[in-house]
Amino acid sequence: MMDRGFASDNASGVHPRILEAIAAANHGHVPAYGDDPITARAVDTIRQSFACDAEVLFCFGGTGANVLALAAVTRPYQAVLCADSAHVWNSECAAPEHFFGGKLIPVTSQFGKLEPGGLAAHVSPGRGVHQSPVRVLTITQPTEWGTLYSVAELRALAAFAHAHGLVLHVDGARFANAAAALGTTLAELGPGCGIDVLSFGGTKNGLLGAEAVIFFDPALAEEAAYVRKQATQLASKMRFLSAQFLAYLEDDLWRDLAGHANAMATRLAAAVGDVGGLEFVCPVECNMLFPRLPAAALTRLHEHHHFHTWDEAASIARWVTSFDTTADDVDRFAEAVREAVVAR
Amino acid sequence: MMDRGFASDNASGVHPRILEAIAAANHGHVPAYGDDPITARAVDTIRQSFACDAEVLFCFGGTGANVLALAAVTRPYQAVLCADSAHVWNSECAAPEHFFGGKLIPVTSQFGKLEPGGLAAHVSPGRGVHQSPVRVLTITQPTEWGTLYSVAELRALAAFAHAHGLVLHVDGARFANAAAALGTTLAELGPGCGIDVLSFGGTKNGLLGAEAVIFFDPALAEEAAYVRKQATQLASKMRFLSAQFLAYLEDDLWRDLAGHANAMATRLAAAVGDVGGLEFVCPVECNMLFPRLPAAALTRLHEHHHFHTWDEAASIARWVTSFDTTADDVDRFAEAVREAVVAR
Amino acid sequence: MMDRGFASDNASGVHPRILEAIAAANHGHVPAYGDDPITARAVDTIRQSFACDAEVLFCFGGTGANVLALAAVTRPYQAVLCADSAHVWNSECAAPEHFFGGKLIPVTSQFGKLEPGGLAAHVSPGRGVHQSPVRVLTITQPTEWGTLYSVAELRALAAFAHAHGLVLHVDGARFANAAAALGTTLAELGPGCGIDVLSFGGTKNGLLGAEAVIFFDPALAEEAAYVRKQATQLASKMRFLSAQFLAYLEDDLWRDLAGHANAMATRLAAAVGDVGGLEFVCPVECNMLFPRLPAAALTRLHEHHHFHTWDEAASIARWVTSFDTTADDVDRFAEAVREAVVAR
Amino acid sequence: MMDRGFASDNASGVHPRILEAIAAANHGHVPAYGDDPITARAVDTIRQSFACDAEVLFCFGGTGANVLALAAVTRPYQAVLCADSAHVWNSECAAPEHFFGGKLIPVTSQFGKLEPGGLAAHVSPGRGVHQSPVRVLTITQPTEWGTLYSVAELRALAAFAHAHGLVLHVDGARFANAAAALGTTLAELGPGCGIDVLSFGGTKNGLLGAEAVIFFDPALAEEAAYVRKQATQLASKMRFLSAQFLAYLEDDLWRDLAGHANAMATRLAAAVGDVGGLEFVCPVECNMLFPRLPAAALTRLHEHHHFHTWDEAASIARWVTSFDTTADDVDRFAEAVREAVVAR
Repeated sequence: MMDRGFASDNASGVHPRILEAIAAANHGHVPAYGDDPITARAVDTIRQSFACDAEVLFCFGGTGANVLALAAVTRPYQAVLCADSAHVWNSECAAPEHFFGGKLIPVTSQFGKLEPGGLAAHVSPGRGVHQSPVRVLTITQPTEWGTLYSVAELRALAAFAHAHGLVLHVDGARFANAAAALGTTLAELGPGCGIDVLSFGGTKNGLLGAEAVIFFDPALAEEAAYVRKQATQLASKMRFLSAQFLAYLEDDLWRDLAGHANAMATRLAAAVGDVGGLEFVCPVECNMLFPRLPAAALTRLHEHHHFHTWDEAASIARWVTSFDTTADDVDRFAEAVREAVVAR
Repeated sequence: MMDRGFASDNASGVHPRILEAIAAANHGHVPAYGDDPITARAVDTIRQSFACDAEVLFCFGGTGANVLALAAVTRPYQAVLCADSAHVWNSECAAPEHFFGGKLIPVTSQFGKLEPGGLAAHVSPGRGVHQSPVRVLTITQPTEWGTLYSVAELRALAAFAHAHGLVLHVDGARFANAAAALGTTLAELGPGCGIDVLSFGGTKNGLLGAEAVIFFDPALAEEAAYVRKQATQLASKMRFLSAQFLAYLEDDLWRDLAGHANAMATRLAAAVGDVGGLEFVCPVECNMLFPRLPAAALTRLHEHHHFHTWDEAASIARWVTSFDTTADDVDRFAEAVREAVVAR
Repeated sequence: MMDRGFASDNASGVHPRILEAIAAANHGHVPAYGDDPITARAVDTIRQSFACDAEVLFCFGGTGANVLALAAVTRPYQAVLCADSAHVWNSECAAPEHFFGGKLIPVTSQFGKLEPGGLAAHVSPGRGVHQSPVRVLTITQPTEWGTLYSVAELRALAAFAHAHGLVLHVDGARFANAAAALGTTLAELGPGCGIDVLSFGGTKNGLLGAEAVIFFDPALAEEAAYVRKQATQLASKMRFLSAQFLAYLEDDLWRDLAGHANAMATRLAAAVGDVGGLEFVCPVECNMLFPRLPAAALTRLHEHHHFHTWDEAASIARWVTSFDTTADDVDRFAEAVREAVVAR
Repeated sequence: MMDRGFASDNASGVHPRILEAIAAANHGHVPAYGDDPITARAVDTIRQSFACDAEVLFCFGGTGANVLALAAVTRPYQAVLCADSAHVWNSECAAPEHFFGGKLIPVTSQFGKLEPGGLAAHVSPGRGVHQSPVRVLTITQPTEWGTLYSVAELRALAAFAHAHGLVLHVDGARFANAAAALGTTLAELGPGCGIDVLSFGGTKNGLLGAEAVIFFDPALAEEAAYVRKQATQLASKMRFLSAQFLAYLEDDLWRDLAGHANAMATRLAAAVGDVGGLEFVCPVECNMLFPRLPAAALTRLHEHHHFHTWDEAASIARWVTSFDTTADDVDRFAEAVREAVVAR
């Protein structure tokens, strides 16, 4: 067990209210595989939170959620456009390609963000059957660089996608952080922006382990239940996933947790903002920070602190704050950063 | 929330000691994806329980465990022999074929059990590249019919498999029930019988949700870590899966829970044994019962009780007892059965 | 180079008129990948032969044709029913499963033939998402045992398939032999029987190498062009495949060739019909014979003749006649058979 | 039938000596699927031409050859590095990903060419199981831009690949054009440069339709025969593919044909070299030319001539010469180009 660090929001544990909800759901027998009343309530609650009559499928993990989302709306000969920094491209060990059967096409991004201009070349008529036709545009909100798409930017991407017959999928492993940072409701940032399918994460924001794939257009979900089963993402004791989401959405717990993590990132950015030789390579917009530090400082800091070196050659680190990061954690770490940089 | 019934051991919840272990693991930050001390201890504990230096990979669910086990030891052009009643054949929506890329070959079984005689025809030299070569024999212990392979029968199958260059995989979603019923240690029933790879279930026996794939020959696991990730079965907050197994193996909790479930099945079998018009189509050897009842009795019984009709045409039901089934549950259900049959 | 034997119709070469057609097509440049006038004419000719406005896709080989046909009409989580003797099940090295992504389900057949009664159990409502839903019924006409479905039997299977929402696919690697034997037109035996998709073979009946996948309902072919490309079955110099089919269908060459092969099988059956100790295990209905002979006779016969031992344990051989088998070939072989059996 | 144009070497037909070889092979019966003497001789001839004891597998088409080559040496969770202009990336409709099960990673190229410097970032240690590990580097020789890797450049790439544990595959759909242009033997340009696996094309250089996958290290081919069958690339009447390669290699026919095509490209480049407003965007090194012309000239030229617009936005065309392109064809086309550009 290590102290709370800045390695990842996955390194954190479970929020007490989530654990309580799991314990409360542990009562008697219920039908397995999601045919239980807790799951029914959780689905209803998500529909209310997103203000639409979506199809909702819970699953175990983030990669599984993305695989389910993409496979449900594609055929094996089709292609999916993604950012070159996307989790689906870099961090899922070819699970999407393997499971849906087709091709991911990475597109150059600006700190994780795509824009219609950069996508246009990929959706031209193509060369008949030789080229895998693009069916989906998937983006990450917030991105793997912690940057955010604004509502206007999302709408522009949705308009682009729909104009070209594409489904817009959002990998929202940290979607709560985005909504908290932008001050929107989930509905505003999801279907309100024209998103078609959302991988709505929970695990990185205080759940024990549960994600929801939300098809805002139920027609896109016609095959999703079979796809989830074939993708090994159907939980037998589903109620314990559903119960997590019920607690997560109750009284907007998600916003409190994500907002706190975001605030801790802001605090950290401010606390080291004046350290000479340290700069953030992209804006700190939610709970992730990408500082460039002298290599020696990185080495020194690693002696007592957990975090990832994001780009060794460029001497860029990644710091992530969590729902349970404290102001004290931040202040002590900021002090350590300052010392590490000065000491070089 | 329904009363405890006999629908499935998946309908049950979580044993209190498992929930406690999860709560106890919820402390501070740890590295994600299994690089944490709790997972290390859980792996060690499994190695001790199985008395060998196995590779152990935890995963989310039973279908995922089977997919991981099979894909780790096969190439996409190969075949896997299974019983025609196997979960991998009937109840995983083609997940094994889809993920490993090859073929399952169902073999006629006797209430879920295979024997070398029936397998021989499938491992003959074959017709060159036209026939997908068999690489794995997978069996279920206990079977989907609740029957058990004896130690001698397992050893005979292992000898057959190894003589033909096959890997012997066991789908042990209810492996604890088998070991409890046979009075063996896990080591005796696993590597002691020549099993190569085991899907060691936990969810059906009181865990919240966790399975372990155990490669008794570590050489078979060389690619397993990548396969687990690609199969979407790598948990980020792994400690909460590992903690379940730690508690499960401590003081042989697994044996208490499975032994209790088995005892409740025996009690139920005894309690209805003299009901005229009811017969068990196969021996009741662990926690599953397959009674044949008059169709009208099934209908009547379904009015107030949850269980599955296994074979509608043959009027066969499936009753499953759980770690939390009480003697009172059994006695009241037996009474209801008696009344339903008599009342027809 | 061996003499003409009875090993397989694949062992034969190319009919002269087919070679001539290839040579005649070798003139100047034409667009690649099928956008050429010869292909357009060949497609038209097939439509006329089958008397319907089908989608027609030429491809390289028989396994490729079946893979294309099945993958074009299925989703990866679905299942395909086939006979336990089917080429797709036994002789395609898991290519269908691998490519379409789902499951083949073998059904017990009577010398290769299926009937609705035996299929009913496989299309019952199923157990929700756990069971891969059946989407296709594939049969072989003539079967791998050389037996034939009558027009009435085909219609019954088509009615069964359509009543259960299934697509009826026919593996017609030797479809010409069936039509010649039954005295039907291609149209009568294809769309006239309710077949939805046909793998229409040519290679076994005198072509150099070409097969056609015919979707009698063009709606089923919406994705077929992409599927063919992804399945590596799109020929760049397509005209040389198309030209073969043009010659094959001109003046019903297919019927002459297949009829001749069938007649040679009939002649062979008659010529050895009175050999004591030899019996045909199933009716000789087209160009394949399955005699049971004493093992010693098989051994002796193999010394100077090429043919396959179909079932070593049961002492059953397979003899196949070809478009180029001569009466003299048959008479000499029959004599050799007689001597081999007598000499034992 | 159109006149010989400059659309593609796939638009051309079959060289007479290839057709003659096919006709000569059409004699009697031979075992199917490659167990015939013609195939044995063709394999031997390829081994001699490449001066090594390679495993050689013939297959139908170019996409099939690449799929076979890549799938034979990879596991489904692995990755393949390729140029962003590669045929496997752009023009095979996700067949490689679909069949081998993993990921292609496109790398920025300079007119189709990769160099070690640009690859290094892709073979760093990676982030454990999250990142699909790279197993193969595939390059195209000549590239899709008609540019050539020199022997030294190939050796450098091979050294890089082997230093990082990668297999070096070459998509040699036009490999003959490269060897003819560079004046090397096949052996010098293949195993002599450290290539491990070669897709050795024939179809684009005068064959009717046949490609060979050559594993210079036979250990890499252990599973290739099964992979070819499962990939639907095993020809039943194999002798007619093998016979094409026999004729192709006899007296270095391949070099005559490719050398002629290359010479015609050189002639065309020279003939239009002084046309103002036309420039070649990359060197003309074999049989492909990529001129930039005024858009109006392209439009005018398209009225009477077949060729592809390679990049509409950049006004770049692709012209390809063939084994059967004549000097007269070139001169007349050059004249038409001149007129089209002048007339704008």
